[in-house]
Amino acid sequence: MHAKLIHIDLSSEVPAYDQIAGEIRALLVSGVLRAGDALPPVRQLAIDLNVHHNTVAQAYRILADEGWLDLRRGRGARVVPRSAPPQTSKKGRQNFSLHLRRLLAKAAAEGISADVLAHQLTLHARTIKNWAKGDS
Amino acid sequence: MHAKLIHIDLSSEVPAYDQIAGEIRALLVSGVLRAGDALPPVRQLAIDLNVHHNTVAQAYRILADEGWLDLRRGRGARVVPRSAPPQTSKKGRQNFSLHLRRLLAKAAAEGISADVLAHQLTLHARTIKNWAKGDS
Repeated sequence: MHAKLIHIDLSSEVPAYDQIAGEIRALLVSGVLRAGDALPPVRQLAIDLNVHHNTVAQAYRILADEGWLDLRRGRGARVVPRSAPPQTSKKGRQNFSLHLRRLLAKAAAEGISADVLAHQLTLHARTIKNWAKGDS
Repeated sequence: MHAKLIHIDLSSEVPAYDQIAGEIRALLVSGVLRAGDALPPVRQLAIDLNVHHNTVAQAYRILADEGWLDLRRGRGARVVPRSAPPQTSKKGRQNFSLHLRRLLAKAAAEGISADVLAHQLTLHARTIKNWAKGDS
């Protein structure tokens, strides 16, 4: 995985470790990163992203806790086959919808037009259908 | 505005003031709350949501800073006409896309199926088009 695939904003309120974990999670979910792939060494990625190495280590730990990575000492971080998570409850789906609504409201309040937002949603809906194809 | 319109999760990592501001912003952007509407008194909403009154006050201040509310002492919080924000830059749109991608990856990793996610996106895209109609 090339560090250029990871986009973080050091001026954001979202902690950098959270952003890095979120970026790598998106690569995992979409199938860009697959079981067996090696992640860059913590210190190398930290230099590339201009963050402390503990920040990268924390992001890797979050993903390991979620079952995506194997972090055995001396072997580096490696993507492992992850068993499918249990189907989310209704509450989980409602929670997603709530966060999506807030994200959209924030973007609209910041001046992104309704047309652009709707277009982005449609594009992402199409991308997700390709994830589903990749799985089967 | 009835407190039942505000959905917050006190067990979430997102601070309650941020959630409350996000919920009210969604009501403002979608036109459920309009210029001239009064918001509930801080202490009343705090009781209804089971949070400290400072938490509600902080949410109201965030929205006042964004130009949505007038908080003059003794008059309560009232929605004011807000001038349209400047059109967001390319960076703002990319930032939205990044956050959307991360939100989707997190939901997928938690077991929400690609079909459900795509359906939700399509639904929200339709809702947004109705916001746009309300504006004109």
